[in-house]
Amino acid sequence: MNFIKACYQAKLFEYGPTKGTIFITPNGFDIWQKIQKNLDYEFKQLGVENVYFPSLFPYSMLAQEEEHIDGFKPEIFTIEQTGNKKLNDKLVLRPTSEVVFCSYFQKVLKSYRDLPLLLNQWVNVWRYEQNPNPFLRNMEFLWNEGHTLHLNETKATEFCHKILNIYRNFLQKKLLIPVFVGYKSELEKFAGAEKTWGLETILPDGQFLQLATVHYFGQNFAEKFDVKFLNKENKGTTPYQTSWGISTRAIAGLVQTHFDNKGLILPFLFAKYQILILPIYMKKANEQNLKITNYCKLLQKRLVKNNFKVKLISEQYKKNFSYHCLQSEIIGTPMRLEIGKQEVLDETVTFVFRHNLKQKRKLSFEQFFTNFNQLYQQMNKELYDKATKIQNLKIEKIINFEKYLKLNKNKAFEVWFCNKKECEKQIKQLTKTVSRILWKTNKINKCFKCQKKTKYQAFFGRSY
Amino acid sequence: MNFIKACYQAKLFEYGPTKGTIFITPNGFDIWQKIQKNLDYEFKQLGVENVYFPSLFPYSMLAQEEEHIDGFKPEIFTIEQTGNKKLNDKLVLRPTSEVVFCSYFQKVLKSYRDLPLLLNQWVNVWRYEQNPNPFLRNMEFLWNEGHTLHLNETKATEFCHKILNIYRNFLQKKLLIPVFVGYKSELEKFAGAEKTWGLETILPDGQFLQLATVHYFGQNFAEKFDVKFLNKENKGTTPYQTSWGISTRAIAGLVQTHFDNKGLILPFLFAKYQILILPIYMKKANEQNLKITNYCKLLQKRLVKNNFKVKLISEQYKKNFSYHCLQSEIIGTPMRLEIGKQEVLDETVTFVFRHNLKQKRKLSFEQFFTNFNQLYQQMNKELYDKATKIQNLKIEKIINFEKYLKLNKNKAFEVWFCNKKECEKQIKQLTKTVSRILWKTNKINKCFKCQKKTKYQAFFGRSY
Repeated sequence: MNFIKACYQAKLFEYGPTKGTIFITPNGFDIWQKIQKNLDYEFKQLGVENVYFPSLFPYSMLAQEEEHIDGFKPEIFTIEQTGNKKLNDKLVLRPTSEVVFCSYFQKVLKSYRDLPLLLNQWVNVWRYEQNPNPFLRNMEFLWNEGHTLHLNETKATEFCHKILNIYRNFLQKKLLIPVFVGYKSELEKFAGAEKTWGLETILPDGQFLQLATVHYFGQNFAEKFDVKFLNKENKGTTPYQTSWGISTRAIAGLVQTHFDNKGLILPFLFAKYQILILPIYMKKANEQNLKITNYCKLLQKRLVKNNFKVKLISEQYKKNFSYHCLQSEIIGTPMRLEIGKQEVLDETVTFVFRHNLKQKRKLSFEQFFTNFNQLYQQMNKELYDKATKIQNLKIEKIINFEKYLKLNKNKAFEVWFCNKKECEKQIKQLTKTVSRILWKTNKINKCFKCQKKTKYQAFFGRSY
Repeated sequence: MNFIKACYQAKLFEYGPTKGTIFITPNGFDIWQKIQKNLDYEFKQLGVENVYFPSLFPYSMLAQEEEHIDGFKPEIFTIEQTGNKKLNDKLVLRPTSEVVFCSYFQKVLKSYRDLPLLLNQWVNVWRYEQNPNPFLRNMEFLWNEGHTLHLNETKATEFCHKILNIYRNFLQKKLLIPVFVGYKSELEKFAGAEKTWGLETILPDGQFLQLATVHYFGQNFAEKFDVKFLNKENKGTTPYQTSWGISTRAIAGLVQTHFDNKGLILPFLFAKYQILILPIYMKKANEQNLKITNYCKLLQKRLVKNNFKVKLISEQYKKNFSYHCLQSEIIGTPMRLEIGKQEVLDETVTFVFRHNLKQKRKLSFEQFFTNFNQLYQQMNKELYDKATKIQNLKIEKIINFEKYLKLNKNKAFEVWFCNKKECEKQIKQLTKTVSRILWKTNKINKCFKCQKKTKYQAFFGRSY
């Protein structure tokens, strides 16, 4: 099964009215709400405040930073008309909001006492896509965009690392997606940024997926937009800026990392129903069935009391045992309890985890609850370890560019790389691959393409 | 002080980069997040699920319902270009999403078992405004738009009333805004609706403000978009549809209903900081000041434990006592505690409510906490009662249209009204006022304009 079919079957989306748009349906949006809630809490711990800033702004504003407009020009939607009226000023729909935040900062920033200024918005953005794909690349997607100002470079960079940590922890410990964190190359960094960090995963098909980014702008945008504050000595000073985001693409990452041939596999934290209780009834309604129902309700009550989202299938649907199994496997319900005559007699619980359907287990009622936390941790660990193992199998070290040219690009290639724009452009032209992330080492080696000396290693490969 | 200044001073917004747009800044967005959280909880109790649907869709789709496109034509933003590419299909930015939801329903609705289908989204919408005003009328605003399908007219109408109740309770009991609920007239109802209910308040300046609406569409849209389900007899059947929304305009309602010359007055539920603890220190740092600090911290701890959001001013800012008072009055902090030497000695708490700054009161530490809930209820009651009283003073009964013509339109005029489009068009032309809401009575009387017999009474007046 491919990823899109898995999402479609689980009703995470439906195709939208225009090419490149999707309806994010209740099951899909539920995952996004959970992502939002988790991260929003973390951002707030750092003192970040939420806002809502205009999605429409003058084209001329976007054009104020040359690299920035060059980067976004091919993707932006422009508006020249409303109703029957031609607009004087051509407007754009935000592809990102650095310039909008700068125009706000310019108005409100007064003194060093206003710093750091830590803002964020959870909004929709638009970027035209030639080859749209549900959740991966859409004309419109949802994301968070944080925009902050700081007193100096050190404080701004420190803040970038705090956000990187939040994203990394969230991706690895909550979504259970193993990620690599590194710099973006000179060619691949964000249009207008001094430094961009990417958090990327290697998917089972060997392609990279960028899940979040953090940008450090230095004083670049602030200077162009005349953003200034009075420092302690009452001198006009330019602040240092960052921005950072994670999008609905994280849903694609979550699904692609864990799904199997039957459908989705969701971690407990992101499942609408975490536990399905499936009673195995006798064909005829009888006293035995009543006992099964009561036992299941007891289980349900106890689980709900422990804050789990539980779905209990009622007797009227007893014929559809295999349908309910299948359905819960399609939507990725993490755990299923199967309760029949025997379980009631023994006072036991038979259960199976979605990621390991072959391993059915049985515990006494009390043991089941005593061990629950451990079982839950174990599921998380197994999911993460499995993904890490698959990811590591997809990494190949490459020294020789001639060899690289001939290889099928269905892997992540670890190389020494000079991080020169010209060199990467040549690689891109010859192989249609670019660097995904870079990291600085203590050693010196030769760039796999131009042979110049470098301290940087990098991943090259295909990406979504 | 006028409403806009009150909002601006309290930093609820800043003017945006294009005429008619605003930055909703942290203080303003905080109120919106609280509105969202409250209502979202209520919607979910009814089984409503959240989604995110495309903001861009073909113009031709909007044009499929004639009344609908006629209603929205002057206000919509159209997009014909992306990057350097001319789009084949002209797109619109959603002014509302009835047609988008219909195109989704058409795809996914199969059987009577899928009904009711209860969806909602919290999103941005765009409508061009000639005379924009912060929070009242903006080119872009935030709202909830619920869209539901039902088996038959009865069920759809019942659902409308459930939503009306949620909105009414929220507005009256949480935002403490007295509202009138009634029908929209034939002229004023939503483009494409069979029936529209409005929830309106009369503001202290005598103008109406519409705070939320609920629409019943019957089968109108569903028929145009070929939305069908198989009923129990396996026959293709058209469902009955509703939609409903409340927007960031509610922030304007909240502010305008309660604010005074000093600034905002916020109910506890919508204040960022609910209680300001203001220590009154001696000029010199001494042991007495330490005692004051400790006593304040004790108060703070106890209040935080009771889930209140508390702000405690620390000793280093002791010189700015009146600044802090003023500041908390501008942003509308509901309650202020003033703690000096005497309070520490007596073990008492001196406090004052924002809506009644002249009435300073003192209670013993324990009494303060024992009576807190009662004090809080009393504040809510006083705010609501005051607003109701002011509102009632603004209502005037009118029988004679000649007299109505001559009156200053700074009131809400209660009239008998025929609810005929032609009659209302004439009234609109002659007086620049329209009906705001209607309600059916058991009596029969003559329309104040055309003298035709009618059972309907209505409010006429100016509106924001």
